[in-house]
Amino acid sequence: MSKSQYITGLRAVEQLLNSESADIRQVYAEYQTANPRVQAVIAEARKAGIEIQAANRARLTQISGESRHQGIVAEVRRSSVMDEGGLRTLVEERLQDPDGRPLLLLVLDGVQDPHNLGACMRTADAAGVDALVVPRRGAAGLGPTVSKVAAGAAEQLSFVPVANLGRVLAWLSDYGVRCVGTSDKADESLFDADLTGSVALVMGREHTGLSKGITSRCDTLIKLPMEGVVSSLNVSVATGICLYEIVRQRHLRMP
Amino acid sequence: MSKSQYITGLRAVEQLLNSESADIRQVYAEYQTANPRVQAVIAEARKAGIEIQAANRARLTQISGESRHQGIVAEVRRSSVMDEGGLRTLVEERLQDPDGRPLLLLVLDGVQDPHNLGACMRTADAAGVDALVVPRRGAAGLGPTVSKVAAGAAEQLSFVPVANLGRVLAWLSDYGVRCVGTSDKADESLFDADLTGSVALVMGREHTGLSKGITSRCDTLIKLPMEGVVSSLNVSVATGICLYEIVRQRHLRMP
Repeated sequence: MSKSQYITGLRAVEQLLNSESADIRQVYAEYQTANPRVQAVIAEARKAGIEIQAANRARLTQISGESRHQGIVAEVRRSSVMDEGGLRTLVEERLQDPDGRPLLLLVLDGVQDPHNLGACMRTADAAGVDALVVPRRGAAGLGPTVSKVAAGAAEQLSFVPVANLGRVLAWLSDYGVRCVGTSDKADESLFDADLTGSVALVMGREHTGLSKGITSRCDTLIKLPMEGVVSSLNVSVATGICLYEIVRQRHLRMP
Repeated sequence: MSKSQYITGLRAVEQLLNSESADIRQVYAEYQTANPRVQAVIAEARKAGIEIQAANRARLTQISGESRHQGIVAEVRRSSVMDEGGLRTLVEERLQDPDGRPLLLLVLDGVQDPHNLGACMRTADAAGVDALVVPRRGAAGLGPTVSKVAAGAAEQLSFVPVANLGRVLAWLSDYGVRCVGTSDKADESLFDADLTGSVALVMGREHTGLSKGITSRCDTLIKLPMEGVVSSLNVSVATGICLYEIVRQRHLRMP
């Protein structure tokens, strides 16, 4: 049976309610609230046939493990976690479909901060990423902060924690998915790279970037032009820039 | 006389020391530390002739107003704040220079979260933004959190708090600087817009986006393609994507 996950905050719960594929078990809400947005969310959930449970602020904090819940918590069936076998099936099916759009995977090599993971998920969802691949150990995992920052994307995007990221990149390459890593030591600029085929975009962790082992598994390394004094960008910002350059190049290719 | 500002954290102080134009008055450092990065920063600062003051952790927190200082605080001469008159002079000089590259301004219409402001400054510096314009009231201002997240950019980037943002956009338009706002209600995609001339990119605040008054002052409205369930991106991520699309278009134009 799938586990429950608790989504907190007005924005995230509003997004969930607007999403057709979200599987909401119930909504816990602070009833004695003057906030019209909480009242609107309650009305919306009721209209969708979702059970509403009244709870006070302390109880909401206890349920969700998050004190900044803004008076609203949704319990969802968490079904977006996929294992390496599931990823392989997804990749095989997509590559075998002659009419399929190119595959787009995001690989985060050990991002530590749940805010960054959540922001990457939010952008990945918006850019049409098929799955997010992360190492099972030594990296931020899913949780209430990630869900809140991801604004609904954490429940939608396929999330694939794997035991050995290098091995996954190796078989992705074998299937013809190009592994594109970002590194400030790369020769090629993001804007000079052809990113129209099936791509796994590989981003490094905060401060240290891509590990050597993962860098050596990449088929191409690209860098962002940097014109000022800072030497790197925040990982969620850099991820957004790279993903949207891929979106742009594909958009140009569309009939 | 210019005021001092305190920059905390290893990454931010390392960036400062690497920057040729940073004006560091002195560095406060925790001497009894086993952290080799703190020791390396102390050595680097000493080599650059900067005075080092020993301080314990409590004193560093007191000086900087920030408890997560990682044992290092730099006092810098803050000279990047510019008034509206200074901005006008900058714009006039750049537009009159026939060999000058196009002007690039970033306008944040009321961003609230200092983390978002800092992340926007970091990206703006990297993308070659000439000045950041913000409303003087109702928006995040400079401070230790902004400086830390900006990773050195807050001391470099011209920061222009103005009394009336709409009025500034009006005179920028009169000078021929195109004010490009982002809105999910825009008809044109970011990738279909010509952003090669002098541009002021105008981004809205978290959750609510651009205000009506500011939207009406924009010469063009653009939107980002959104393919998933989330309806918007984090403002610092969206700013990064738009700024780097401007960088890309200019890069193509370069000889």
